[in-house]
Amino acid sequence: MIIILDEKKAEKKIAELKKIFNGQKQIFVNDNRVAIQGADVNELPADIVATAEIITDVPAAVQGSRLFHPQDTVIKTPHAVIGGAEFIMMAGPCSVESEEHVKKMAKVAKEGGAKIIRGGAFKPRTSPYSFQGLGEEGLKYLREAADENGMDMITEVMDDEHVEMVAKYTDIFQIGARNMQNFSLLKTVGKTNIPVALKRGMSATIDDLLNAAEYIVSEGNRQIMLLERGIRTFDNKYTRNTFDLGAVPVLKKLTHYPVIVDPSHAVGEWDLVTPMALAGAASGADGMIVEIHDEPTKALSDGPQALKPKTYLKMAQKVFEVHQVISKK
Amino acid sequence: MIIILDEKKAEKKIAELKKIFNGQKQIFVNDNRVAIQGADVNELPADIVATAEIITDVPAAVQGSRLFHPQDTVIKTPHAVIGGAEFIMMAGPCSVESEEHVKKMAKVAKEGGAKIIRGGAFKPRTSPYSFQGLGEEGLKYLREAADENGMDMITEVMDDEHVEMVAKYTDIFQIGARNMQNFSLLKTVGKTNIPVALKRGMSATIDDLLNAAEYIVSEGNRQIMLLERGIRTFDNKYTRNTFDLGAVPVLKKLTHYPVIVDPSHAVGEWDLVTPMALAGAASGADGMIVEIHDEPTKALSDGPQALKPKTYLKMAQKVFEVHQVISKK
Amino acid sequence: MIIILDEKKAEKKIAELKKIFNGQKQIFVNDNRVAIQGADVNELPADIVATAEIITDVPAAVQGSRLFHPQDTVIKTPHAVIGGAEFIMMAGPCSVESEEHVKKMAKVAKEGGAKIIRGGAFKPRTSPYSFQGLGEEGLKYLREAADENGMDMITEVMDDEHVEMVAKYTDIFQIGARNMQNFSLLKTVGKTNIPVALKRGMSATIDDLLNAAEYIVSEGNRQIMLLERGIRTFDNKYTRNTFDLGAVPVLKKLTHYPVIVDPSHAVGEWDLVTPMALAGAASGADGMIVEIHDEPTKALSDGPQALKPKTYLKMAQKVFEVHQVISKK
Amino acid sequence: MIIILDEKKAEKKIAELKKIFNGQKQIFVNDNRVAIQGADVNELPADIVATAEIITDVPAAVQGSRLFHPQDTVIKTPHAVIGGAEFIMMAGPCSVESEEHVKKMAKVAKEGGAKIIRGGAFKPRTSPYSFQGLGEEGLKYLREAADENGMDMITEVMDDEHVEMVAKYTDIFQIGARNMQNFSLLKTVGKTNIPVALKRGMSATIDDLLNAAEYIVSEGNRQIMLLERGIRTFDNKYTRNTFDLGAVPVLKKLTHYPVIVDPSHAVGEWDLVTPMALAGAASGADGMIVEIHDEPTKALSDGPQALKPKTYLKMAQKVFEVHQVISKK
Repeated sequence: MIIILDEKKAEKKIAELKKIFNGQKQIFVNDNRVAIQGADVNELPADIVATAEIITDVPAAVQGSRLFHPQDTVIKTPHAVIGGAEFIMMAGPCSVESEEHVKKMAKVAKEGGAKIIRGGAFKPRTSPYSFQGLGEEGLKYLREAADENGMDMITEVMDDEHVEMVAKYTDIFQIGARNMQNFSLLKTVGKTNIPVALKRGMSATIDDLLNAAEYIVSEGNRQIMLLERGIRTFDNKYTRNTFDLGAVPVLKKLTHYPVIVDPSHAVGEWDLVTPMALAGAASGADGMIVEIHDEPTKALSDGPQALKPKTYLKMAQKVFEVHQVISKK
Repeated sequence: MIIILDEKKAEKKIAELKKIFNGQKQIFVNDNRVAIQGADVNELPADIVATAEIITDVPAAVQGSRLFHPQDTVIKTPHAVIGGAEFIMMAGPCSVESEEHVKKMAKVAKEGGAKIIRGGAFKPRTSPYSFQGLGEEGLKYLREAADENGMDMITEVMDDEHVEMVAKYTDIFQIGARNMQNFSLLKTVGKTNIPVALKRGMSATIDDLLNAAEYIVSEGNRQIMLLERGIRTFDNKYTRNTFDLGAVPVLKKLTHYPVIVDPSHAVGEWDLVTPMALAGAASGADGMIVEIHDEPTKALSDGPQALKPKTYLKMAQKVFEVHQVISKK
Repeated sequence: MIIILDEKKAEKKIAELKKIFNGQKQIFVNDNRVAIQGADVNELPADIVATAEIITDVPAAVQGSRLFHPQDTVIKTPHAVIGGAEFIMMAGPCSVESEEHVKKMAKVAKEGGAKIIRGGAFKPRTSPYSFQGLGEEGLKYLREAADENGMDMITEVMDDEHVEMVAKYTDIFQIGARNMQNFSLLKTVGKTNIPVALKRGMSATIDDLLNAAEYIVSEGNRQIMLLERGIRTFDNKYTRNTFDLGAVPVLKKLTHYPVIVDPSHAVGEWDLVTPMALAGAASGADGMIVEIHDEPTKALSDGPQALKPKTYLKMAQKVFEVHQVISKK
Repeated sequence: MIIILDEKKAEKKIAELKKIFNGQKQIFVNDNRVAIQGADVNELPADIVATAEIITDVPAAVQGSRLFHPQDTVIKTPHAVIGGAEFIMMAGPCSVESEEHVKKMAKVAKEGGAKIIRGGAFKPRTSPYSFQGLGEEGLKYLREAADENGMDMITEVMDDEHVEMVAKYTDIFQIGARNMQNFSLLKTVGKTNIPVALKRGMSATIDDLLNAAEYIVSEGNRQIMLLERGIRTFDNKYTRNTFDLGAVPVLKKLTHYPVIVDPSHAVGEWDLVTPMALAGAASGADGMIVEIHDEPTKALSDGPQALKPKTYLKMAQKVFEVHQVISKK
């Protein structure tokens, strides 16, 4: 249930509601809107029922819902504003391969207009025998690469025990698709004040994704962005996944969190990335994240989808142009 | 197998190959490229093996493949050029509901820059008890609406027995998603010289779609365009289908046929259509087809996805702008 | 809406209802149950509203629904009873390859307890260049094979224009998965009195399947059986499709038509067929259809899934045993 | 690569191979079979190349592969043998709701022939606001219920930090579908010597599942069983998931781990569970796990799919009969 109070008397009524329900039900407050989990209209005081607007059909992921929080969430990192007027470019290598390489890629990323550098230090590999990442050493190189270029850093944290360590380096936590329902991890990053980029699971419905985000915000961390990276369907011969761009306007309608698109993992082939990046920008996304590599055939992970610097620069320029076109009134 | 001959001596060698294989194997010729279905390299004359480039890994849908036909197919209808430099807009009501209504919608469509009016006279309804369309009367009204506005007409033909009748009215046959593997119907329209817009089946792989197109071209009709209209996946609560825009660059790579996108059927909700139309234009499609209606709540079919005139006009303007941005060098 | 009348006064009230609605609404009668398409309760006479049980939440595919027709539909062909107490085995080659071969396979089929021989004379091939079947000649051989062994015949009819010809030979029409929504074909076979085996489309929902069946019964043919043959999902590396056995009890609950399973097309590999045939029998299906071939590597179509005679005989024996176990009280 | 050595000289050659590769490549030994991750044939000694059978096309999940370990893995818990000749029944409530309830359900489970009682103390709920389980208290009650009835216990462990605690109570760890790719958790349970029941993720391919199992065995724990519980597809109106029974024979072919089926989560509705349990037994599974509850409408989780005691007892009896039929030669 969401109660939209008259703005003038909101404070008093909010106090009243907290008194009635506190301890028994979950109560969330956003300005003049109060969400009460699992409460009935007949538990409310008569004056509120009479004067307030009450919405009963409310999703479980209530704090993430625009019914509760109509205004866009805007996330500020040291060098970027995500969810605002600007289209945010995040770019970098799939894995942090070496100090030299990630610093080289950071320069390329920056040149294309990226404000955030990506790179994996802990890699979720399908096989336990594949390269698993450089670990803390990789985080260190990525941090330096970001600092040298006046950029922010985003990197994946894969388990609870690494959250504290990764927090020392990163500006944004990335939660991988396979961990979207690792509820324990979601709660742990939810207890920090570091922005979280939550990747949609490969067969997560929109509701699954929003419920996963709710695990994060339920611990107090409101700085959440959602990542569409392709879903798993029968159509998997020519593309790694099916890029579900329809999810972008659906999410922008249902939730206030910024929506980022990841064309690299969606399509899995470098020559399909640019059209999908352009489509992603045109669909209304707040930003995108893309993998780049100067020598894709030598990449330690996901080589086939990495963009060479020249391709990346052309793609980025066009993406900003498309965003400009769809943004103007 | 595809044999790429030296352009100078091509004619002579093509004659040679026809002599060897004719009657036994299917042979197709495009300029200096010869495709021979089911032949082995060791059946070829030595001089051809020595001088020509031979591609053995060739898809079954060979005539549709860029390996056989590298140049884009451009389809010319009386008022439009599909697959060329211009982005083609096709718009109109889902069904032809009445003479007055379709003519009113034709004006709106034209105003938004559409060159082709759509409308269904024979509707493929999931239930046999739903409105099935106006039949030939509907074709007549749609034809008049097109003529009055200097536009071309596209309409669905649902079975073999109606092909001849629909051919008298339409500039383009549309083959619906549910009929994508109605091989009999594909062959029948393949015998005509009317362009065919082939909709991708709701769980058709890219190869299925290309093989279906091959049924059409195998009867002689080369004027084929492919329509992406969303595929069926687990993600169906907020959108009718999953709009597979990744299919656009994949198809542009594999085949020479123009690629059209249908955001209306893909998302199923009017307020999701514009972002998906923009994304479709940005993905590199050659055109789009969209449903419009002045009073969607009263539409006889697919009301929820229809765009009101004002929304359509705004969407169309932005779509052409996006296309312009991605087209320039 | 379905009205369940008091059995004593049913006849009189049915006449009353027909008088009120005839010509305007579709009315269907089964014993004391009357289904009226698209009618409102307030259009009914007061006495009926007072005395009858009225179900308003009724599927579009009303004639197929157990709410309208609670009793099982039992289909009798010259040599078999489908939908009764007995588990029906249908077996045969994928394609009728030659007179000799189909007659040889008929004997094997019979030996395993099959009462119905299958074989395709018109093959729905993904590529137009593949073997398309022997046509009428194939029908003739299959008919003779059936007659020589005291069996019935089931074969696929692929388009309207062949219905009349195939009707001269077959005991059961098979409508292929790709034609499940070929509404024209469904109506044509619906006009005959030959039983129809309707294959579920590869991405047809349960409702899609029931609606397709409704197209058949809407033309008067009540002798329909439904075939589960696997659906298309992301899981397609080791099996051709995903065998959706959950559909069997769902269909037995919702509809009165017999349910047949096709493990051959579902899994696509011969060594997976037996476990799936056993599972199909255990799931409560009324019968199964399986492909057999004495030399699968030489089969003209679908070789990998064909069972050799010895495998077939062992499988069939076990299938009947499993059916016996689950049937006893 | 897998090298199958002559059994007589195996020991000596194994020592030789370990000497060559140790430290550089992963080497696994099973009897006379040696698997070497990422090695080339040309790195092998000539005598081995000459005398041994070498398989190069080997899956990444090599220790789980029958190519490496042809013999079935049989897991022995105090009261059960899983993967042997006997069909193993595991039953119990979805959640441990109270001491009284779980002990009551344990008796019912036992009566139906179950040797293992299930119950969740830590529930993976889609929403953070739902009942999350009784925690350690729940583990305690489940342990007592098991002991009172001479049964073993299986329960889900959801994160690394709880592994040690759950290990004190349970005979089998269950890893939930949403955690199938929680690689950190897989490695942690892999370090224990407690059998692990790994649930297939809702859109995990067969290879994904086997690779996840490989994470467990890579840490030394060979006691793994795989659970098929339904996959996510478009077909989700009447069933919660699509029960992929085709996966059972596929897994039995590819891997040596026991395969268990979970019809409860697959279909989500109690009246569909029995047919699917029977089908699961008929498909060749080594056992099944089912949810029971005496008052499903009052269940704290997953009420709709729970079997009442009477239904469970009937189902179990039939399941054992079906297993008997398919097991005899």
